[in-house]
Amino acid sequence: MEIICLQENLKKGLNITERIIGKNLTLPILNNILISVEKSSIKLCSTDLEIGINCEISGKIIKQGAIAIPAKVLTSFINNLPNKKVQLKTKDNKLMIKCENYKSQIKGFSSEEFPIIPKIKSEPILKINKDILRTGLSQIVEITAISESRPEISGIYMKFEKESIKTAATDSFRLAEKIINDVDIASINENEIIIPKRTVVELIRILQDDDIGNVELVLNQNQVLFNLNNVQIISRLIEGKFPDYTQIIPKEFQAQVITNKQELINNIKLASFFSGKANEVKLSILPSKSLVELSSEDADVGSHKSSLPAKIQGKPIKISFNYRYLLDGLNNIFSDKVIISIGKEAGKTLITSVGDESYKYIVMPIKA
Amino acid sequence: MEIICLQENLKKGLNITERIIGKNLTLPILNNILISVEKSSIKLCSTDLEIGINCEISGKIIKQGAIAIPAKVLTSFINNLPNKKVQLKTKDNKLMIKCENYKSQIKGFSSEEFPIIPKIKSEPILKINKDILRTGLSQIVEITAISESRPEISGIYMKFEKESIKTAATDSFRLAEKIINDVDIASINENEIIIPKRTVVELIRILQDDDIGNVELVLNQNQVLFNLNNVQIISRLIEGKFPDYTQIIPKEFQAQVITNKQELINNIKLASFFSGKANEVKLSILPSKSLVELSSEDADVGSHKSSLPAKIQGKPIKISFNYRYLLDGLNNIFSDKVIISIGKEAGKTLITSVGDESYKYIVMPIKA
Repeated sequence: MEIICLQENLKKGLNITERIIGKNLTLPILNNILISVEKSSIKLCSTDLEIGINCEISGKIIKQGAIAIPAKVLTSFINNLPNKKVQLKTKDNKLMIKCENYKSQIKGFSSEEFPIIPKIKSEPILKINKDILRTGLSQIVEITAISESRPEISGIYMKFEKESIKTAATDSFRLAEKIINDVDIASINENEIIIPKRTVVELIRILQDDDIGNVELVLNQNQVLFNLNNVQIISRLIEGKFPDYTQIIPKEFQAQVITNKQELINNIKLASFFSGKANEVKLSILPSKSLVELSSEDADVGSHKSSLPAKIQGKPIKISFNYRYLLDGLNNIFSDKVIISIGKEAGKTLITSVGDESYKYIVMPIKA
Repeated sequence: MEIICLQENLKKGLNITERIIGKNLTLPILNNILISVEKSSIKLCSTDLEIGINCEISGKIIKQGAIAIPAKVLTSFINNLPNKKVQLKTKDNKLMIKCENYKSQIKGFSSEEFPIIPKIKSEPILKINKDILRTGLSQIVEITAISESRPEISGIYMKFEKESIKTAATDSFRLAEKIINDVDIASINENEIIIPKRTVVELIRILQDDDIGNVELVLNQNQVLFNLNNVQIISRLIEGKFPDYTQIIPKEFQAQVITNKQELINNIKLASFFSGKANEVKLSILPSKSLVELSSEDADVGSHKSSLPAKIQGKPIKISFNYRYLLDGLNNIFSDKVIISIGKEAGKTLITSVGDESYKYIVMPIKA
């Protein structure tokens, strides 16, 4: 194998592929990046057997071939080279690197030891703008809980509909749903999947790259492929059935509060310093005064009280939440105003945005 | 006690005083900040019994008094308030805080439980521009080693001379000396002191503040006071005698190399990836070629070689260093060109700047 490419291109490709590589002691070959040169393409590949990333980079091909090189040392070394032409050449199981007056060799492994990343040959089922996909997934991914006993909630649920993707995530204390619109759906066989949280986190990270345009999604039985121009992310899917959460979305409410989102966030943050071990912040909804009062008390630290103006429909209510759960929902709302709807059943509460129905956040109170 | 002050002023003062407070389990009162209002001054104080910080803030005094309040909760809470007027008022051992629509109380302790930070009443021995002091100390502080067996090298050495301060630090593997000039020295009784590393680190941090102008230094027998307008830092001094390092500065050299500092740093960084457990990077000084060659080899990882042009006087030498030690010295040189002088005795090496004789860095080789 022999190629010449710009440091910048190599660096970018390595940083995209390198991130999923940990320190695998039982299968050390997984700590490597495979550099493979075939026909007219230079590819960098990494995998942890759950996710695989392929990244094609541009460069001049002198000789085809492949080698697996320890990811951390290769990436750190290339990151520190000047942005000039870099020559990479294999000799036995070593990679010879030349750049300006620098000459190095890094010990690697035969490409044959590197696991084959499965290929998905099916047609894409949909195409979507990368920013719409990234923003939508970012709004829900963080609340996913990694649970060994309930693997089906350890991932992001996706349901493909006519012109949209319904996505949802939960940790059983709260649930977020995001409808991603403007999707160009081609054909659907399977219409529900669960994607591991880590895959979605990596996808969101890679989607930040400006070079990426639209995203194609390809499915086969137990795998998903995200095709982003020169980068492919392949992941296993989580088996099992995501809980049928539509029934838990509250539809009848004791009270509905419309207030300024940022002010509410500020008030909750200040109350949080006195929220004790349970992270408990109390909301008093006062329709007659058009006010929401927030209070918290910690016997060891002290106490706090504040109020903010709100439009309120319904009856007066006192209800307590884990303040972190409230903030997780509010921070994913992009409008200035937010609607807090306290459900009739056990105080189950729905947080939505004024003017955007695509995002729903449902949270259970500590005390209702 | 009752005062009203702007959140911004309070926040700034708290963040200056709060940093030295850890989590002291044996003397929990040290986890507090003392707010004390006397005559026309509002003071925030913190101490860990080694360092004490007093910070005067501006505000309206309504009633004199004092209280000790847990530093972490107070600082985090005030940091999150809007930049408006904040009212602080004591009631029993609680601090009542009002700001806009926020009302809180934080449990505190009687000011009498808070240790007295000693006052130094002597006249200042010198006055110096804060940026000159900060830059000078930053160049040497990091190599100080905290050593229980050799407390005298756990601090920064200062020797007051006619119009300058000679400062030095060492960890016994390398030594840095910085002559700080432009000092307005008044009078000196004691002319050598050793200041604990942590004190110097805190001093450097606080000196970054734009509000601070000149710095006065006041000494008494076993303490030093840095007086920075509204902030005072008081620290105990380290007893003992700093090693007489002037004799170890090499004066006769096998070779002297003048080269570009940044290129040398880049070359060392790249070689470092192959430097193995000993961090060993080899320099080959080649006067006939006007080149310095850098090389490194790690049996498990691979090897590296590079060269850079240099003006060389003296004979050819091969010498190895811990690359971290080289970088620590080079990163504290501010000129474009650097002089590497390999001493005759055991390869003891002096790193200096072209055109600035105030900074000297001496490092021992691994192999000479």
